[in-house]
Amino acid sequence: DDFFEVAGRTFRSRLLVGTGKYQDFDETRDAIEASGAEIVTVAVRRVNVTDPKQPMLVDYVDPKVYTYLPNTAGCFDADTAVRTLRLAREAGGWNLVKLEVLGDQKTLYPNVTETLAAAEALIKDGFEVMVYTNDDPIMAKRLEDVGCCAIMPLGSLIGSGLGIMNPVNIRLIKESVSVPVLVDAGVGTASDAAVAMELGCDGVLMNTAIAGAKDPIKMAKAMKLAIEAGRLSYQAGRMPKKMYADPSSPLAGLI
Amino acid sequence: DDFFEVAGRTFRSRLLVGTGKYQDFDETRDAIEASGAEIVTVAVRRVNVTDPKQPMLVDYVDPKVYTYLPNTAGCFDADTAVRTLRLAREAGGWNLVKLEVLGDQKTLYPNVTETLAAAEALIKDGFEVMVYTNDDPIMAKRLEDVGCCAIMPLGSLIGSGLGIMNPVNIRLIKESVSVPVLVDAGVGTASDAAVAMELGCDGVLMNTAIAGAKDPIKMAKAMKLAIEAGRLSYQAGRMPKKMYADPSSPLAGLI
Amino acid sequence: DDFFEVAGRTFRSRLLVGTGKYQDFDETRDAIEASGAEIVTVAVRRVNVTDPKQPMLVDYVDPKVYTYLPNTAGCFDADTAVRTLRLAREAGGWNLVKLEVLGDQKTLYPNVTETLAAAEALIKDGFEVMVYTNDDPIMAKRLEDVGCCAIMPLGSLIGSGLGIMNPVNIRLIKESVSVPVLVDAGVGTASDAAVAMELGCDGVLMNTAIAGAKDPIKMAKAMKLAIEAGRLSYQAGRMPKKMYADPSSPLAGLI
Amino acid sequence: DDFFEVAGRTFRSRLLVGTGKYQDFDETRDAIEASGAEIVTVAVRRVNVTDPKQPMLVDYVDPKVYTYLPNTAGCFDADTAVRTLRLAREAGGWNLVKLEVLGDQKTLYPNVTETLAAAEALIKDGFEVMVYTNDDPIMAKRLEDVGCCAIMPLGSLIGSGLGIMNPVNIRLIKESVSVPVLVDAGVGTASDAAVAMELGCDGVLMNTAIAGAKDPIKMAKAMKLAIEAGRLSYQAGRMPKKMYADPSSPLAGLI
Repeated sequence: DDFFEVAGRTFRSRLLVGTGKYQDFDETRDAIEASGAEIVTVAVRRVNVTDPKQPMLVDYVDPKVYTYLPNTAGCFDADTAVRTLRLAREAGGWNLVKLEVLGDQKTLYPNVTETLAAAEALIKDGFEVMVYTNDDPIMAKRLEDVGCCAIMPLGSLIGSGLGIMNPVNIRLIKESVSVPVLVDAGVGTASDAAVAMELGCDGVLMNTAIAGAKDPIKMAKAMKLAIEAGRLSYQAGRMPKKMYADPSSPLAGLI
Repeated sequence: DDFFEVAGRTFRSRLLVGTGKYQDFDETRDAIEASGAEIVTVAVRRVNVTDPKQPMLVDYVDPKVYTYLPNTAGCFDADTAVRTLRLAREAGGWNLVKLEVLGDQKTLYPNVTETLAAAEALIKDGFEVMVYTNDDPIMAKRLEDVGCCAIMPLGSLIGSGLGIMNPVNIRLIKESVSVPVLVDAGVGTASDAAVAMELGCDGVLMNTAIAGAKDPIKMAKAMKLAIEAGRLSYQAGRMPKKMYADPSSPLAGLI
Repeated sequence: DDFFEVAGRTFRSRLLVGTGKYQDFDETRDAIEASGAEIVTVAVRRVNVTDPKQPMLVDYVDPKVYTYLPNTAGCFDADTAVRTLRLAREAGGWNLVKLEVLGDQKTLYPNVTETLAAAEALIKDGFEVMVYTNDDPIMAKRLEDVGCCAIMPLGSLIGSGLGIMNPVNIRLIKESVSVPVLVDAGVGTASDAAVAMELGCDGVLMNTAIAGAKDPIKMAKAMKLAIEAGRLSYQAGRMPKKMYADPSSPLAGLI
Repeated sequence: DDFFEVAGRTFRSRLLVGTGKYQDFDETRDAIEASGAEIVTVAVRRVNVTDPKQPMLVDYVDPKVYTYLPNTAGCFDADTAVRTLRLAREAGGWNLVKLEVLGDQKTLYPNVTETLAAAEALIKDGFEVMVYTNDDPIMAKRLEDVGCCAIMPLGSLIGSGLGIMNPVNIRLIKESVSVPVLVDAGVGTASDAAVAMELGCDGVLMNTAIAGAKDPIKMAKAMKLAIEAGRLSYQAGRMPKKMYADPSSPLAGLI
């Protein structure tokens, strides 16, 4: 009974996973299954979702079971991103998409102005847009205002495993927007995922943290539990931090 | 099939919980049940375990179901601690105990020399001693050498919820001793518990983090999952952290 | 002989200070003097720089000695910011300015699209624009590309004293732009200022950290030294961090 | 007029430096001079202070100008440490000493029980003992109680450059003892030194952070300024940290 809703659909699992970087489609399938994810993102420029002569992701990860979320990984400007998603919609009928417009190869950080332009174009065109952005609360609010159905701020650099560099920003985003906030990028280990949820986020999207672990299937299970643990912990309301028993301590605010 | 063994007994749950600070014994029982703990610690100087005319913990938390671990909370010297545990053994037959000899009221940090003396006396007297200590790897090794069956370093101040202040030390302890290492004290939220397990610890003992949450039962569930998540994450082998894609980056070692 | 150059002018001091939040102009003057700053920012919408009947900052902080840097504090859109700086230029002849276009009252984070628009308009109009922005390396590069003469990313929320929340981002900005990078906002104490400089930044701008200290004059001296210390430390090249002597340790990448 | 007093002597510089790990005695001398240190520690088992046929430290670092502080680096038990310092006193007349009794080669952490025993023996024998210990506030207080004239807790592992891993402990030590508290070991860069001073410490001892920098002389200058900056910052009283302008924010205690 703890649902998370995006674009009118409800999901029980708050863990969203990517489909890339696995050894083969068998591992992809097993990891996704272990993760309990209901939404999987697919880089439509990279993954074969249309040519039946090649191995196809859809034969391993059933689109009737999982919600496919096409993403624009590899797009560096608004036009390319919009075109990519239109092609994906024609091919697979996908209307709910994850938009990412990248700023450069080195950081894979979003280009926020191009992202904003693409979001506006896609929404006008009838798409439901979940949007990858940086951890700027002002831009997050702006993306909500133009109609994005979920805000997906980065925790840290894509593929870095550095966790959530700036928890204050993630928290500020959660406070300032009404649509779901999903941390996207940066999670490296289970505790990172729990931290994201404890900040009040609605979910977490990850790929490398699972696919890049020594044992991806086991890590997928770990992440499933960590997301649930973090969610429950947030709902339970943690104890306040204190420096020590003596309330007159001068430590407060110093450290 | 992922057991943790201490003093010849095996336990499936790696979450150990305290029994104090709850509103009443009903809440104590429900939280412990939700936590999935198999070992519960009892402050024998504070909790009524012998007078049947008063409400008794044993009527709510069945000693046949849970392993009672008497502790010496409130003892500030070796003699008092040893005497306390001898009385407990006479009363309840408990041989597996948690030793803590505190240094002062303000920090509740251990007095390590008194702790060491008490540990030696108790072990000579046939006790199986799980020992609360600070996060000093040298002292941890010494306590193992005198025969303690589990080392329980603090993550941070008892009741502080500050989490694991010095993960390097916890990791060094885990590397230097062979008996189980259980983080005791300092955990405030689910991600803290996951961090402890990701460092390779065998378990975590907590009390205030659960009892002091707004909803202790829900937090107990969160902690159960967080411990499992952290354990699996440790076993799965996390992805390496990296600053960014460019391997020639001068960031390494700077931040 | 360690200069920092912006808009064709060279400065020896890498500490830039605000002029607000002091008890009176005497304290403002004394703190600025103690800080060793050569550039002072002035909120032209708040500080009297034109009405000679009221106490005037210029009578305490000599514009012949200090480089006045008019800023647009309190402006929430590009037009207002541009108009404000045009009026300032007419009044005082200031051509080198600090642009800030804020996103909301709660966070005082920049609105980056409005900031970008204002920067372009001002540069077209002949201004030399030092620009307050968030810590997004992509936007920082963009602001340099449109002609800003210095990038001033926030370390954390204005007036928060939280220090540099995301050192990786500050470092990435420093690597991606060629013009000076000055951390603006967030510094709370001397070590924060040193950290900014150790990341390779060209300077730091602060106000509340000095004006809000119990002893602003003493804190101004502390900041002067901290900036110099951090600069020297960066130039000296710090020792690499290591977990411990044993190079075969499995700690690396785990913590 | 900001003195720091130990064993009846006053010192203006709060930076104490080691004399090892330099390329040659010229570099040692230059770095020490640049650091402004008045106290230098000497590993009496390693450095030639008695054989005039070999190059001697005393020819480069004048014992009439600098206070030599013989230390027991390399001693792993109380007896060896005590014997070493007795020999040093016979050779050089040094009465003020730095005691360190190490626990193992891997961590170079102190063995606190041996340290305590050695401290008691040395104090009985008329030495003034400055003592290297871990960051346990209870043991720090105990070492003061047996008569040590300065407590020197580690910030992190010797030679690690990890900075101050547990600022809460350093602060607790400073609150619990009356004799000077000097952070010894772990400082890697200038901001680390400033942090130590901002916690209220009386001084910092370092060696590798200077000798292991690419440019030791420049780093020595950086450290001199960082210590002064941190001291002034502590005295000035930093601004309080806050999450953001809105005082009703639920962020407090969460992050």
